[in-house]
Amino acid sequence: MTKVRTPLILVNFKTYSEATGKKAIKLAKTAGNISLETEVCIGLAPQFTDIAPIARQVSVPVFAQHIDPVKPGSFTGHVLAESVKQAGAVGTLINHSERRLKLADIEATIARAREAGLVSLVCASSTDVSAAVAALGPDMIAVEPPELIGTGIPVSKAKPEVITGAIELVERINPDVLVLCGAGLTMGADVAAALRLGTKGILVASGVVKAKYPHKVLLEFAEAMTKA
Amino acid sequence: MTKVRTPLILVNFKTYSEATGKKAIKLAKTAGNISLETEVCIGLAPQFTDIAPIARQVSVPVFAQHIDPVKPGSFTGHVLAESVKQAGAVGTLINHSERRLKLADIEATIARAREAGLVSLVCASSTDVSAAVAALGPDMIAVEPPELIGTGIPVSKAKPEVITGAIELVERINPDVLVLCGAGLTMGADVAAALRLGTKGILVASGVVKAKYPHKVLLEFAEAMTKA
Amino acid sequence: MTKVRTPLILVNFKTYSEATGKKAIKLAKTAGNISLETEVCIGLAPQFTDIAPIARQVSVPVFAQHIDPVKPGSFTGHVLAESVKQAGAVGTLINHSERRLKLADIEATIARAREAGLVSLVCASSTDVSAAVAALGPDMIAVEPPELIGTGIPVSKAKPEVITGAIELVERINPDVLVLCGAGLTMGADVAAALRLGTKGILVASGVVKAKYPHKVLLEFAEAMTKA
Amino acid sequence: MTKVRTPLILVNFKTYSEATGKKAIKLAKTAGNISLETEVCIGLAPQFTDIAPIARQVSVPVFAQHIDPVKPGSFTGHVLAESVKQAGAVGTLINHSERRLKLADIEATIARAREAGLVSLVCASSTDVSAAVAALGPDMIAVEPPELIGTGIPVSKAKPEVITGAIELVERINPDVLVLCGAGLTMGADVAAALRLGTKGILVASGVVKAKYPHKVLLEFAEAMTKA
Repeated sequence: MTKVRTPLILVNFKTYSEATGKKAIKLAKTAGNISLETEVCIGLAPQFTDIAPIARQVSVPVFAQHIDPVKPGSFTGHVLAESVKQAGAVGTLINHSERRLKLADIEATIARAREAGLVSLVCASSTDVSAAVAALGPDMIAVEPPELIGTGIPVSKAKPEVITGAIELVERINPDVLVLCGAGLTMGADVAAALRLGTKGILVASGVVKAKYPHKVLLEFAEAMTKA
Repeated sequence: MTKVRTPLILVNFKTYSEATGKKAIKLAKTAGNISLETEVCIGLAPQFTDIAPIARQVSVPVFAQHIDPVKPGSFTGHVLAESVKQAGAVGTLINHSERRLKLADIEATIARAREAGLVSLVCASSTDVSAAVAALGPDMIAVEPPELIGTGIPVSKAKPEVITGAIELVERINPDVLVLCGAGLTMGADVAAALRLGTKGILVASGVVKAKYPHKVLLEFAEAMTKA
Repeated sequence: MTKVRTPLILVNFKTYSEATGKKAIKLAKTAGNISLETEVCIGLAPQFTDIAPIARQVSVPVFAQHIDPVKPGSFTGHVLAESVKQAGAVGTLINHSERRLKLADIEATIARAREAGLVSLVCASSTDVSAAVAALGPDMIAVEPPELIGTGIPVSKAKPEVITGAIELVERINPDVLVLCGAGLTMGADVAAALRLGTKGILVASGVVKAKYPHKVLLEFAEAMTKA
Repeated sequence: MTKVRTPLILVNFKTYSEATGKKAIKLAKTAGNISLETEVCIGLAPQFTDIAPIARQVSVPVFAQHIDPVKPGSFTGHVLAESVKQAGAVGTLINHSERRLKLADIEATIARAREAGLVSLVCASSTDVSAAVAALGPDMIAVEPPELIGTGIPVSKAKPEVITGAIELVERINPDVLVLCGAGLTMGADVAAALRLGTKGILVASGVVKAKYPHKVLLEFAEAMTKA
């Protein structure tokens, strides 16, 4: 298990076929090599089934894409915090805009992540939702306006005030929470802009996974981080 | 990947701590040995993260506990049919009473299982629901009155008419669909009774996983099958 | 309370602003007059808040758009079968494609409708789902391919085999269940075609509510029914 | 439409048979009379179908028990803010523990309530969730530990620190938001205690609706408010 450091590039593999099974492992190795070269922390959030093989073979911090707010017990088809931990994950996404949770379940899921020793990264769709999440005390928040996800239009350019507003409110409500930014990032310049706005890193998906040359994009992202 | 044969014992690991991570693999090996000795097909439905290590190390057919009706794409935190297939699963539970689906999603999930080459086993809570599911054409149906799950009171004894009624209706609507029975099974006699009622096997969870001696219970189940 | 007869035109008011509050009552009166003139049964499914005023003021059978599978008790924000019945409804839609239910909840909701004395009309998105629903024994099924809803392309023209296939399977599984058809109906000819395919009526929404002259469309629909 | 004032007693009718249809109107009239006598503001949250008759016949502020975060349009079976407003409601509960919402939907639902001119009262299950909700800027928050709902054990006695903690955090994050308290209230002393802790009123359900003499309990509550 590799620990999370900031600034962080976290790559969400979603259920992309380019990042499923063997292709997930190959992409993870690419990320691992770039992380080694550049000394930038690159976390990966593969599908549940790919957590164990990636965690075993690659020296990157692995996140689950979701866990359920359940304890060990009679919960068929649910994702137990302890199961992803034992598979080698060090953290988990919570409340991604493609897997939204009820408010009370976000609180319970953060608690479950903590009990299992997982870093909790809660996604938030707006400035106010970021503030709301901060009050629940996760380790990190990723601000991702859902309307920009997958567009190639970086939030740092299209709506920088969403990011700076979120950082300001989160700081006031719970200064221990780290803020990342996501949605629409495709270039090194987007990463640099995100850090300049005050974030501690980025959450990216299609910008890397669906890129023609993921290696090139990830390297560009990592280098932008080292220069920032 | 080991194929499914009937009569089938399918053990649902749920999110039981006794069947998570290393303990899941140990229990899977126990099941594998009993299957080898008795030549009875014992399938296992572990958590998503445990599919790959079990499929790699043990010669039993592995099922997912759930898949989502999504195609490869932007679906964070979802379970893709292809991902569990690539991890080594040969089938999937669908619509377990602890993970119920909308009707249209059951249809879509069966289709996704078929496209990915997974055996589809849909759970049904009553005779009429079994008939409804049969109309959607899955490979198997497990009839499990939810009020008996985890009770130790076998459906074959408490409500045999639910099973025989389901078999009759399923036969009339879609004779290709195999019917299993679940809920409350703890002894070899329960298994024998299930087969006598006309089912092609059983779906069991706590009766095995939470047993003091899972090896003993599974062996008793398997021997009851060979004698039936 | 006005009883339901077939052939039936059922108009779903959805949450259209043209069919909310006072406008809902006005549209209901229009429908009531056409029903009186033509002697065709025109049912209306307004929003929950509009059930009581319409049922009190207009002689048409009123349907709820949805009820929850709950009994009287601690269920804040749920729709109780008895509440819509007491407000004057004679029936309810169940599982509309914009308000889909879990399979076991459809069974429970049909039972709740029956207990409260409400006609149950379950929506189905495909031939196989229609067959599945028939096994649950509602009073009526409305076959509505969701991809045609609101398009103006009538299912009776675009996919007549979905309707005839559904009628055939429903007849085989449960001959007591009446089949309606929906999606894309805008003209009298669409209604005539629906009846020719063997349905007992239609479920329509935007084709009437969003029409420039709802009175004209409804009258055309009703006349097509009298001639069929 | 009668306006909301504080201190406020808000009675949630849930789907209790004692507060459905004609019984809902009778109970509403009782509340209206006590409000008139004592000059204490008593709001009522009946089922959707009972909003219009109560708002027409009784001079009390009426709340919906829930609205959906949808705009006018194709949303069958949903509850439109404008529909409850036109039926005579002045406000709405949001996120009751029996009707929990996703975080992003709470934000959207508060916005919809505001657009339609409805007072938004969001329920929160804990101190941290109250703080989270405050960041979303509703008009009011009702702090209700769900484990105490319907128990007869008042939160003001069992967990006063949940209330005082919520008031403190809400004050810090958004001082415009009024805090009510709920769960387990059955006596005048509970109401007095709630106000002493700093709340602006109470949310009550079974304590009034399921009481042997609702009139007596409501009067006791109202008198406790006038003395506080």
